[in-house]
Amino acid sequence: MTQTNQTGQTTHGAATGETNGGYAFGVRVPYGHEEAVTKTKEALKAEGFGVLSEIDIQKAMREKVGHEMGRYLILGACNPQLAHRALQAEKELGALLPCNVVVYEDPGTGGAGGGGGETVVIAQDPQLMLDAVGNQALAAIASEARERLERALRALGGRPR
Amino acid sequence: MTQTNQTGQTTHGAATGETNGGYAFGVRVPYGHEEAVTKTKEALKAEGFGVLSEIDIQKAMREKVGHEMGRYLILGACNPQLAHRALQAEKELGALLPCNVVVYEDPGTGGAGGGGGETVVIAQDPQLMLDAVGNQALAAIASEARERLERALRALGGRPR
Repeated sequence: MTQTNQTGQTTHGAATGETNGGYAFGVRVPYGHEEAVTKTKEALKAEGFGVLSEIDIQKAMREKVGHEMGRYLILGACNPQLAHRALQAEKELGALLPCNVVVYEDPGTGGAGGGGGETVVIAQDPQLMLDAVGNQALAAIASEARERLERALRALGGRPR
Repeated sequence: MTQTNQTGQTTHGAATGETNGGYAFGVRVPYGHEEAVTKTKEALKAEGFGVLSEIDIQKAMREKVGHEMGRYLILGACNPQLAHRALQAEKELGALLPCNVVVYEDPGTGGAGGGGGETVVIAQDPQLMLDAVGNQALAAIASEARERLERALRALGGRPR
């Protein structure tokens, strides 16, 4: 699917296919979870995103509700220049920041890694932020954030999940 | 404003007024920033939310873009039982978790604290998650999350911001 974003450039959604609700895009990558996390951080860094938080959902579910699941890590990715512009335009936007990038094991597919699962990397679509807030001053910022996140995820060399 | 949520119970939006775009609700509290953070964590805990991440936006902006601003802390709040149910219903929902609660200094108001500003506490509206994903299995979960977050913020004894 080729689509036109707010700045009139075309983006290629197919490489990082949308999910059902359109709230995230991502790829299935040929790495185990740990390597995928490392490569994801490198790819994000190349696009100007630092990782400000890491939340281990597998650990939280095990410790708090006794539920076992595959590895599931939420990285809080922030491009400081974009965040700065966004917060200048919308003071309370921190309620929707940073942009989540999730690296998780998908046990449903079997195959690849030694752990028996495959690894999927997805990013929250920054467009969601724009839709929720309704502040058009954020349009160009959300568009740039999405382009950078898409490039980062494409750089992982995965395939549609 | 009294409104009816998905489960037919009434909630009282006025006490924790919505922002313009409806993506967050919150209160202006009679505490300095540090005390507000402590009390917010206690209030969240009483509603079953742990804090899984803390992002210091003031520090990030100072270090990364040389911009000075008031204190601005993003707490990643997670109610493990609700998160577990939500992830069972929607595998990739981690892209939108945890629920952000932001404690920030509002320099625009003068007054209160020794630092010359007032402190505002806002929470991301979980309804946003539901709207973005379009999975009706999340409706009751989002509704309960919102009720719990509203009660937590009301317990801070603030006033509309």
